[in-house]
Amino acid sequence: MIVGFVGLGAMGRPMAENVAAAGHALRVWGRRPASTAALADAGATVCATPREMASACDVVVSVVTNGEDVKAVALGDDGILAGLPAGAIHVDLSTIAPGIARELSAVYAQQGAEFLDAPVSGGSTGARAGTLAIMVGGDEDAFERARPVLEAMGKTIRRIGPSGAGQVAKACNQMIFVTAVQACAEALHLAEASGVDVARVRQALLGGSAWSRALDVWGDKMVTRDFSPGVESRLHHKDFRILMNEAMSTGVPLPIAAQVWQQLNAMMGSGFGRDDTSSLLRVLEQSRNTP
Amino acid sequence: MIVGFVGLGAMGRPMAENVAAAGHALRVWGRRPASTAALADAGATVCATPREMASACDVVVSVVTNGEDVKAVALGDDGILAGLPAGAIHVDLSTIAPGIARELSAVYAQQGAEFLDAPVSGGSTGARAGTLAIMVGGDEDAFERARPVLEAMGKTIRRIGPSGAGQVAKACNQMIFVTAVQACAEALHLAEASGVDVARVRQALLGGSAWSRALDVWGDKMVTRDFSPGVESRLHHKDFRILMNEAMSTGVPLPIAAQVWQQLNAMMGSGFGRDDTSSLLRVLEQSRNTP
Repeated sequence: MIVGFVGLGAMGRPMAENVAAAGHALRVWGRRPASTAALADAGATVCATPREMASACDVVVSVVTNGEDVKAVALGDDGILAGLPAGAIHVDLSTIAPGIARELSAVYAQQGAEFLDAPVSGGSTGARAGTLAIMVGGDEDAFERARPVLEAMGKTIRRIGPSGAGQVAKACNQMIFVTAVQACAEALHLAEASGVDVARVRQALLGGSAWSRALDVWGDKMVTRDFSPGVESRLHHKDFRILMNEAMSTGVPLPIAAQVWQQLNAMMGSGFGRDDTSSLLRVLEQSRNTP
Repeated sequence: MIVGFVGLGAMGRPMAENVAAAGHALRVWGRRPASTAALADAGATVCATPREMASACDVVVSVVTNGEDVKAVALGDDGILAGLPAGAIHVDLSTIAPGIARELSAVYAQQGAEFLDAPVSGGSTGARAGTLAIMVGGDEDAFERARPVLEAMGKTIRRIGPSGAGQVAKACNQMIFVTAVQACAEALHLAEASGVDVARVRQALLGGSAWSRALDVWGDKMVTRDFSPGVESRLHHKDFRILMNEAMSTGVPLPIAAQVWQQLNAMMGSGFGRDDTSSLLRVLEQSRNTP
């Protein structure tokens, strides 16, 4: 297939490379020429606008930071939708509000095009390895047609439901995951304050009901005090804004998500926004170390 | 070895059977004759008091509900310590406050006996299968001598540190685990309120960073609305009292643990104390359903 790609950052670049490696022809667009250079060298067609890029594509993939970014590349005279051939599909892998995904899906449908929300979990490691979990919302037929492209990037690929459902699942994912990181931070901080070896505690807990990917990977970063980012924590902070807005609009109280959100706020305010989310441990330590 | 066993409930009974199956001779004591009958039929020696039971043992195991229960069987004229031969070991598998474990360890040491805190994780399923995680605090030599008995009951057996360290690890385990159950409840409740299929959300999230034993097992109970207990939630409520007391005595703030504690309080107040902890979902649903 001919696949367009917008957003060639830490996540998008390796994903695009995996799509090319699976035998698809790449068309790329980037605001900064530097972002497309490596892919151009590998044979991708570099385009002047999202519209030009989309005009020859079966599937266009976007991986950007937030809902406004997606709208900026999707809509307008030079946007993806203006160029997309009838029946072609824009798959957005960014993490954005479910409402924006539904809004874009409706606009696309009016013009005979398809918009799928397909946020991912697995970080840059999963992006490089092609092992991402991809949670898809939108038309079932469009999902099946886009599947070969998704399979080049991820391992667990599931359609959750209609438009927006992928983003709801992603919000749930971030809620569960970041809460688990915060729980590890609190537990290991308590163990340390109790004079108990935190590495041994983590190791023992991996054998029981407390087992989680967060304890395994992010707990290890806390124990070894390696706060270099897998995913920068400011992105999880952003994801929680989406989550809490969704809680407000559905009228659902989320008591611990709200508390985790405040810890993420404290993390941002403490200057840890570009570090790993395991820095939630350092937020707890600060309040203890303050005289 | 000759092994004494006190506390033959849903956890203790299968654990005692596994110890017997591993070739150790069992001596048992129970407040209610009914609790010892099945083991007596299988060849265990039934004793009149904890003291009598302990008097011929290399290792005594207790699996009771709380710290007061442990003290009641350990101390006093008819208690385990009064009977325990020099060099023998009392291994307490109950979940109690680290401070009580340290206190008992000190009293035992004064009389030339050993007390190990060795709380477990894995529930009645793990107890039956002999696959419990066992977190041990106390003297290293005593731990090594008691190890064959522990290996008959568990799979992941680790000494965490000195007396009390096993209980600190268990408090951390419960904190991380119950928080993960609450996070699943909030996420699935939000998904449902957003009109998204909760079974598909859970399935998709098992592929990514949100993976946890809680989402796998307790998330499934929420999706299928099976609130029958693995472990009754009132026991987790009790464990959080230990956890929050430990936070107070060490001066460590535990923001989300405190919030989860309040949800457990609400769960108890809602009459779900004998149900599974996945009932945390029903606590959220109540506040949404109240007009």
